Amino acid sequence: MTGDLVTPVYIKKGVLMLLDQRKLPGKETYLKIVQPGQLINAIQSLAVRGAPAIGVAAALGLSVFAKRIRTKQEESFLDVFTAIAKRVADARPTAVNLGWAVDRILAAVEQAKGKGVDALIDAIAGEARKVFDDEVESCRRISEYGEKLIADGSSVLTHCNAGAIATGGLGTALGMVTLASRAGKRVRVYADETRPLLQGNRLTSWEMVKLGINVLVIPDGASGSLMQRGLVDCVVVGADRIARNGDTANKIGTYMAALAAHDNRVPFYVAAPFSTIDMNCAVGADIPIEERDPKEVLNFGGKRIAARGAGAMNPAFDVTPARLITAIITDKGVVYPPYELDKV
Amino acid sequence: MTGDLVTPVYIKKGVLMLLDQRKLPGKETYLKIVQPGQLINAIQSLAVRGAPAIGVAAALGLSVFAKRIRTKQEESFLDVFTAIAKRVADARPTAVNLGWAVDRILAAVEQAKGKGVDALIDAIAGEARKVFDDEVESCRRISEYGEKLIADGSSVLTHCNAGAIATGGLGTALGMVTLASRAGKRVRVYADETRPLLQGNRLTSWEMVKLGINVLVIPDGASGSLMQRGLVDCVVVGADRIARNGDTANKIGTYMAALAAHDNRVPFYVAAPFSTIDMNCAVGADIPIEERDPKEVLNFGGKRIAARGAGAMNPAFDVTPARLITAIITDKGVVYPPYELDKV
Repeated sequence: MTGDLVTPVYIKKGVLMLLDQRKLPGKETYLKIVQPGQLINAIQSLAVRGAPAIGVAAALGLSVFAKRIRTKQEESFLDVFTAIAKRVADARPTAVNLGWAVDRILAAVEQAKGKGVDALIDAIAGEARKVFDDEVESCRRISEYGEKLIADGSSVLTHCNAGAIATGGLGTALGMVTLASRAGKRVRVYADETRPLLQGNRLTSWEMVKLGINVLVIPDGASGSLMQRGLVDCVVVGADRIARNGDTANKIGTYMAALAAHDNRVPFYVAAPFSTIDMNCAVGADIPIEERDPKEVLNFGGKRIAARGAGAMNPAFDVTPARLITAIITDKGVVYPPYELDKV
Repeated sequence: MTGDLVTPVYIKKGVLMLLDQRKLPGKETYLKIVQPGQLINAIQSLAVRGAPAIGVAAALGLSVFAKRIRTKQEESFLDVFTAIAKRVADARPTAVNLGWAVDRILAAVEQAKGKGVDALIDAIAGEARKVFDDEVESCRRISEYGEKLIADGSSVLTHCNAGAIATGGLGTALGMVTLASRAGKRVRVYADETRPLLQGNRLTSWEMVKLGINVLVIPDGASGSLMQRGLVDCVVVGADRIARNGDTANKIGTYMAALAAHDNRVPFYVAAPFSTIDMNCAVGADIPIEERDPKEVLNFGGKRIAARGAGAMNPAFDVTPARLITAIITDKGVVYPPYELDKV
């Protein structure tokens, strides 16, 4: 669908196929999903991750689940479907794309009401397809706008993973890098490994190697040191939710990379589809932050690292204040401060 | 020797006993060292770590090796011993305490020259004992000065491990916390896990649990987020080498924690013996930074994390500029900016 890129989410014979990102880079296997509980578990356990990819998975998943509801009676179909949609939307709190994708599906349902269950199912499938296509198109635009910001010979530092598998299209932050590389620019990626779940170490490394792009993994704590040494030309990250004023929630550790970029006058870019902007959030403090299982920090590969008796905190995201963000690269163009995103 | 604290380095029946910190917190075992190659390997593989503890291990190790040199001819003894001392001093580049401890032993040798091999061996053993005792005394003073900076009910964030096992005495950063706790203050420690080698997750958690101090491990990328949320009252770290102007080399990631502290007006303290200050380094840029094996980043527990084909960078330390340091807590007292450490 996107050349040499991986498609992490698609439908095959009425089944939602989800690349199991927990197994990467060791194994490239797909989960076969037909029940809402399976999708919710996949989202919560990060088998599918990346704000845009979660949105696409939710939309396509709902179209699969809709087809499996065993009633031709519209009202009871709607009762069941709405309950499923709500459960899916609540699977994770921070990425706005999840609620946004579900809302799009529900709006399509609203439009098709009164035409019978088959029409509802068609409307859901059509809108889900559109969510997917829009995401692919969004990524293409973001990557095209962003690619211009990457000079030949650049070293780009990124945090977590905002590539094809996080989106469904080219990726956002890594989409920019991918297009820069395709345009013949020499580019190197420094991948923050992104503890605790190592999305950078596991996934960004895997995607970059597949695309033939030079990639060096670094501990999260090393990004500041590399910037001090002048090794980084820009930092590019994705986003899980952006407030109207530009404050950006992204994977835990992003704020610290932004501080280091600011301290060393390295441009710090956020690359995200416009749908990631939550017009209901005035500032970053309004964004809910998911706290995950302490075991993700205390254990590794099922084995305890920490001393028995120690606890952990495991916030999945942090908020980078708008003042640290050089520009936000969206599918509607590159936005510079002061950010008034409701007026773009 | 220090109550309920662990002694990571001591001599027993002519053998250097080194707590193998690579095995913690799972196993509490000691390496038995009689050869320089064993000590160098222990230092390089971080079986013994922490700048002060490395210095103590080097000094005590040299006294063990001196006794095993099989000659009563002073000149050939000195040839062999000096060569060993040089090899030990070169084991790791960043921690100044290593070279400093070896230099103290060599100075003692210089004093005792001409009195025969037995006198040299005695001088070496005496000075090694003194290096150890001075370290214990240093830690006690640092901890007493620093304890006053920790209020009842404080949450202290620390990076890497600067506790008893990193020093030989009470510890530096964690020595302060230990004395605060012993003084009846309620204190919580947030331990940056400190990738790649997880000294915080493994060692700080272990030491704090042993001392009955509340400890929560966090991913390195989370410390900024916790400070944003007002959960941290101060940050305290150790140091591997301090330049005359206060620029401080410490475990990779320290600089980013200091940036986050500065951005959130959280006091950022460095706790280190005066011997950690390298009067030959005017500024941080003069401090040599060790680059370690990329495998420490790409692998975990012997298992590959990253995609095949990806590389890594693994600088072991970074330099925190003096402008981000609220105070340096030394055995000679608390020093505030502007730092002119050669004039203290």
